[in-house]
Amino acid sequence: MDRENKVPNYNYNDNDEAHDIESDGKDVDVYSEPLLVKRRNTTSQIAIVGANVCPIESLDYEIAENELFKQDWRSRKKIQIFQYLLLKWAFALIVGLGTGLVGIFNNIAVENIAGFKLLLTTKLMLRHKYYKAFVAYAGCNLGLAAAAAALCAFIAPAAAGSGIPEVKAYLNGVDAHSILAPSTLFVKIFGSVLGVSAGFVVGKEGPMVHTGACIASLIGQGGSRKYHLTWRWLRYFKNDRDRRDLITCGAAAGVAAAFRAPVGGVLFALEEAASWWRSALLWRTFFTTAIVAIVLRAFIQLCSTGSCGLFGEGGLIMYDVSAAKVTYSAPDILAVILLGTIGGIFGSLYNYLVDKVLRTYSIINERGAAFKILLVISISLLTSISSYGLPWLATCIPCPTDVSVSCPNTDVSGNYKSFQCPSGHYNDLASLFLNTNDDAIRNLLSTSTVKEFHISSLFIFFGAVYCLGIITYGIAVPSGLFIPVILAGACYGRLVGRLFTSISKLDVGLFAVLGAASFLGGTMRMTVSLCVILLELTNDLLLLPLVMLVLLISKTVADVFNKGVYDQIVKLKGLPYMEAHAEPYMKHLVARDVVSGPLITFSGIEKVGNILHALRTTGHNGFPVIDEPPFSDAPALCGLVLRSHLLVLLKGKIFSRDMVPAGDEILHRFAAFDFAKAGSGKGIKVEDLDIEQEEMDMYVDLHPITNASPYTVVETMSLAKAAVLFRQLGLRHMCVVPKSQGRPPIVGILTRHDFMPEHVLGLYPHIRLRK
Amino acid sequence: MDRENKVPNYNYNDNDEAHDIESDGKDVDVYSEPLLVKRRNTTSQIAIVGANVCPIESLDYEIAENELFKQDWRSRKKIQIFQYLLLKWAFALIVGLGTGLVGIFNNIAVENIAGFKLLLTTKLMLRHKYYKAFVAYAGCNLGLAAAAAALCAFIAPAAAGSGIPEVKAYLNGVDAHSILAPSTLFVKIFGSVLGVSAGFVVGKEGPMVHTGACIASLIGQGGSRKYHLTWRWLRYFKNDRDRRDLITCGAAAGVAAAFRAPVGGVLFALEEAASWWRSALLWRTFFTTAIVAIVLRAFIQLCSTGSCGLFGEGGLIMYDVSAAKVTYSAPDILAVILLGTIGGIFGSLYNYLVDKVLRTYSIINERGAAFKILLVISISLLTSISSYGLPWLATCIPCPTDVSVSCPNTDVSGNYKSFQCPSGHYNDLASLFLNTNDDAIRNLLSTSTVKEFHISSLFIFFGAVYCLGIITYGIAVPSGLFIPVILAGACYGRLVGRLFTSISKLDVGLFAVLGAASFLGGTMRMTVSLCVILLELTNDLLLLPLVMLVLLISKTVADVFNKGVYDQIVKLKGLPYMEAHAEPYMKHLVARDVVSGPLITFSGIEKVGNILHALRTTGHNGFPVIDEPPFSDAPALCGLVLRSHLLVLLKGKIFSRDMVPAGDEILHRFAAFDFAKAGSGKGIKVEDLDIEQEEMDMYVDLHPITNASPYTVVETMSLAKAAVLFRQLGLRHMCVVPKSQGRPPIVGILTRHDFMPEHVLGLYPHIRLRK
Repeated sequence: MDRENKVPNYNYNDNDEAHDIESDGKDVDVYSEPLLVKRRNTTSQIAIVGANVCPIESLDYEIAENELFKQDWRSRKKIQIFQYLLLKWAFALIVGLGTGLVGIFNNIAVENIAGFKLLLTTKLMLRHKYYKAFVAYAGCNLGLAAAAAALCAFIAPAAAGSGIPEVKAYLNGVDAHSILAPSTLFVKIFGSVLGVSAGFVVGKEGPMVHTGACIASLIGQGGSRKYHLTWRWLRYFKNDRDRRDLITCGAAAGVAAAFRAPVGGVLFALEEAASWWRSALLWRTFFTTAIVAIVLRAFIQLCSTGSCGLFGEGGLIMYDVSAAKVTYSAPDILAVILLGTIGGIFGSLYNYLVDKVLRTYSIINERGAAFKILLVISISLLTSISSYGLPWLATCIPCPTDVSVSCPNTDVSGNYKSFQCPSGHYNDLASLFLNTNDDAIRNLLSTSTVKEFHISSLFIFFGAVYCLGIITYGIAVPSGLFIPVILAGACYGRLVGRLFTSISKLDVGLFAVLGAASFLGGTMRMTVSLCVILLELTNDLLLLPLVMLVLLISKTVADVFNKGVYDQIVKLKGLPYMEAHAEPYMKHLVARDVVSGPLITFSGIEKVGNILHALRTTGHNGFPVIDEPPFSDAPALCGLVLRSHLLVLLKGKIFSRDMVPAGDEILHRFAAFDFAKAGSGKGIKVEDLDIEQEEMDMYVDLHPITNASPYTVVETMSLAKAAVLFRQLGLRHMCVVPKSQGRPPIVGILTRHDFMPEHVLGLYPHIRLRK
Repeated sequence: MDRENKVPNYNYNDNDEAHDIESDGKDVDVYSEPLLVKRRNTTSQIAIVGANVCPIESLDYEIAENELFKQDWRSRKKIQIFQYLLLKWAFALIVGLGTGLVGIFNNIAVENIAGFKLLLTTKLMLRHKYYKAFVAYAGCNLGLAAAAAALCAFIAPAAAGSGIPEVKAYLNGVDAHSILAPSTLFVKIFGSVLGVSAGFVVGKEGPMVHTGACIASLIGQGGSRKYHLTWRWLRYFKNDRDRRDLITCGAAAGVAAAFRAPVGGVLFALEEAASWWRSALLWRTFFTTAIVAIVLRAFIQLCSTGSCGLFGEGGLIMYDVSAAKVTYSAPDILAVILLGTIGGIFGSLYNYLVDKVLRTYSIINERGAAFKILLVISISLLTSISSYGLPWLATCIPCPTDVSVSCPNTDVSGNYKSFQCPSGHYNDLASLFLNTNDDAIRNLLSTSTVKEFHISSLFIFFGAVYCLGIITYGIAVPSGLFIPVILAGACYGRLVGRLFTSISKLDVGLFAVLGAASFLGGTMRMTVSLCVILLELTNDLLLLPLVMLVLLISKTVADVFNKGVYDQIVKLKGLPYMEAHAEPYMKHLVARDVVSGPLITFSGIEKVGNILHALRTTGHNGFPVIDEPPFSDAPALCGLVLRSHLLVLLKGKIFSRDMVPAGDEILHRFAAFDFAKAGSGKGIKVEDLDIEQEEMDMYVDLHPITNASPYTVVETMSLAKAAVLFRQLGLRHMCVVPKSQGRPPIVGILTRHDFMPEHVLGLYPHIRLRK
């Protein structure tokens, strides 16, 4: 299986191969890596089942309260707890610094590369070498696009796309391997720079979020062993809970760096990215984004001296519309309501089309790296042709006399592009197309320039950008969704503003902001975070009530049609995302209904051979441990033992010939840290064990590593209630116990998979009808 | 027991009486009303045990999955679910409208009353009748203060204070009766108007939050039966979950109305008020605050025509500092760091002193209404003397020549108060003292007026306001903490700005904003929400990084010394607040350790007499139901039955002479709605039952009302883990089951009380040492 085949597509539900896995046993966590290990060659790194399924591992936020943990807790000193706390904040600081620096690097690089490209094109245009100008423009785009695609296709396929859905899934408890790997981080940073510079209708916001999460993960993993970047003192963070918190900070830092919106970043993490939230985390996230804000500010001050090349006002978007006076009356509100409604429809249509395009692209992308790059090249060519060709449709407009900026502008950015127009005239479409996306948005959002753009030009640009945005997402290039949506939305808003000039007195620049809000609300379906991000972007608080109104309307309208774009992509990628609420049909089922298949249990003191057999033949990640006479009066659920802990224990080889407790020796020989969770895919594997035949008949005491108090539900609890418990506590395994005594003490284990609609509705298809 | 004695003070932990209650049995929810009913006369309304303990009831967010519920769910039609959803939004709309209108009313009333008072004083001053002016000023203040105190003391003692701690406790699951009653709402609205008009150093923000919560509660309760305001269609909301959500919206609406900060309101609810949060709720809260913003805007536009009396710019605070240019360099940052550090120290000192004062005042207030009013009158006199007396210490300052406003100002509000000064001069202290608090803050935050206030004047005002703020909170008047803290903080900030003029080039107005931020961070310990509230208040987004920095520093510094002021008040009032994290010592204990006392269980089909006896002699709110042979093979935990459900069932009198199942009849005769939770203190009480002697020996089938899947934990689960489960899921009862079979199927029940540090450390005092 070639590396090129490693499309990051996790369709387990659309995939028969994955269904085979299910039949292994119902309490199995089917997405876990160890299971998949069995099904492929023993090479390390990314594993794919059926050519298009990435290994997915559930995360476990439950504290495994076994004896080792208790011993460790009892012996923990105050200074260690303090160190740990300090480390948490230090890590947040590093994540903030790192993300801020990447944000700065990204902006400086994009502004310089794209600036060089545009400058070259403009110069050739001025000399009327139109054909050469196109070749230069399209050639630059093509080169940059191909480089980005090559990075993505050959080094880290997981770096393609926005990354926000994957981060969202990770924070929900689904770890798709390699999604936060160092190679992904590398490709995400450089691929994003290349992709944005290549003139694609893509943003750097999604990639920045992903980058922030990757940086956080890198630190939280205890470095990367592959690249020899590990530090001993990072081991404190070797658990899923602390990693989750850190990655939440990283996601927030990403938004903060992308939009220069620190509060918006916190709210984004809270509203969209995170599935669990605590007040303490709010504060840490806030700290991280504050660091990002400080880093950005320091560098902008540094760059203001001109030492960053072409990096000027264009980088680090901040669209100041505060110059426009915000006063509105009833007709304005009516116009805004209409704007929001149509924006919502357009937004949901956007989601629908993105979904269709993604499905088509995944077929192409699955064929290999060559096809991926070919797709990128085609889209790049299409984009270049649109950007360079469409401005020819526009008529030259005489420069306004009352503006302070130069017109026509022959600089890198700016409002009034000369293009093919004679001196004293400008081409309004070229001002939008032949600019970086950031500058195009700035032009659309500019206030007090009502007639700068022809209505027909706005129509053309809107159509082009809306379509390009849809067909660009999904190609093998890091691509954010925010900028395309803002671009299309701002154009739409300005268009509506122009059409409504007779009714509404609101500035067209403000209409553009509201249009962007309506599109964002219609696609992303966020509320408070978008509101704050837009406020921080446009620096106009007085616009707040209108932005709120538009967001509420467009989200409400769009929710009628489909789900938010990120939820849709998560679903499309087959990531088993747990919703916060239980589905209505779950109230008709009980926990027992979705538990089935053979349950593998261990005795408190179990034969090594039995354990090894279970580990080899199943993919289960948790095994119930049952104490039986003579170790207890009646069979009793002792607890749950984790696969990873079993592997460590077996590797330690503290076996005995007889069935006798050996807890003390284990407690003496092992420390809790030995069982700390390694980074993704780095733990001991069953193949790493070297158990000899004679050891197979020996016994090992599982009590010290058994989590003696797993969360349990009775078999008659409604599935809805069990789902809420599972999701609220961030579990990986939930034991189902029998209602009455006298039966085996455990009925089965519920995992994330068992709550997925596909699984439940597969078992009970008639419920779908009743629903 | 007189009504005057009803001090809203819930010190159960400082109170031996309450400790008596504990001994009733360990699984009892000691704060519940029914228990307290037993201990007092059967009169309705507010009950007090031991003269200073209010009845506190835990809320239950668990869905009681009994057969009735399941029957109801199965039969629920799509249209009903849609109606319910619609109603949720309609209620949010009503809460928004109501809170917005109250906010407007509050502002108009305060501006007019205080304006009249200040106008009268100024007129007398201008005629040099200084003695008369003082009498008029102090007299007005006294009258208003006495009226506010009388309202509080006689009608609703629970309306005194901020209200935010109580709302916070409610949203944590602690319902202190009468805290959200209609009478409290009434007093809160009018008492707040009177109190603020009376010139106290109090704000309307806390009371607005409480008002919003009260309005939400009133709607969520299904109206008030006492005042004959009930509607049938409100019964959908008769459960704790929906009420909690609605009250969260109300709290957000309160902040939005008080500060004209809709996004800040949402974040306040999220960060400070709420203990549980869902994404869906975020959106609804956002909607509510948007409505508030629209209502406020509409009224401000209406009032701008001058139809609201003296209500002008002064009302609905919005301190625009966006005129000041925000540029800063290293020395500014150093100054800001120093400002934040000292602000944090002052903030925590504020909390410390407020705590001491509150403890002192509670002794005075407990003595009766007369003492309460006397205390209010003394503070009012002290405030009047300070406000009127201290400006005499200031020297007259010649009016600046370059200002656009009139100087000296003889109007209601304004910067330059003439006071005793000759024409062409103004008294800077009078500009601060003889103004409404809103106007004083506006003056302190005014930009480009560096030398308006003498440094000595700022010192005097800071000292006076800091002390007055501390001694005013706790008197029997609705009093918010935000405004006193902002006032003192802004003055402190301006002072620092003045002292640092040589080092820092930042405008003193901006220093005042940062000072306010540092004090707010030091007392309230919020981060994101304060940040956004301040941004929305001052309309200057460029200040954001500095505000974030100050908040982070001041909160960090203050956290070293003590807890946030609201947490402190919650603790002082003895409200059993569940923290989000478990205390470290809880890891050393297991669930079984804190469960003790006789456990009262029922059989699946139980004798009426036994139930009645249990209801009468205990205060338990949940009873485990155990199925025994012949109804099951072995004793098994059937589930949990709630007191309120038992009372409804007993009132229905579906008894049988023999021990036979009667589930079908009960399911036929009752609907789930009959068991819906009534508003606070409105359910059936055990005294309302009319069971005859012969019925005592009959049997009643408890199965239909037994929640067959209560959340359970094994006895060996660590208390920390159990606490997280309890808090995360918002439980009222948690069943502790035995580890091994062959024992009775339930060990005990854990309630909120069992997790309180007082209880745990009372049982295991040695842990305190180890901690």
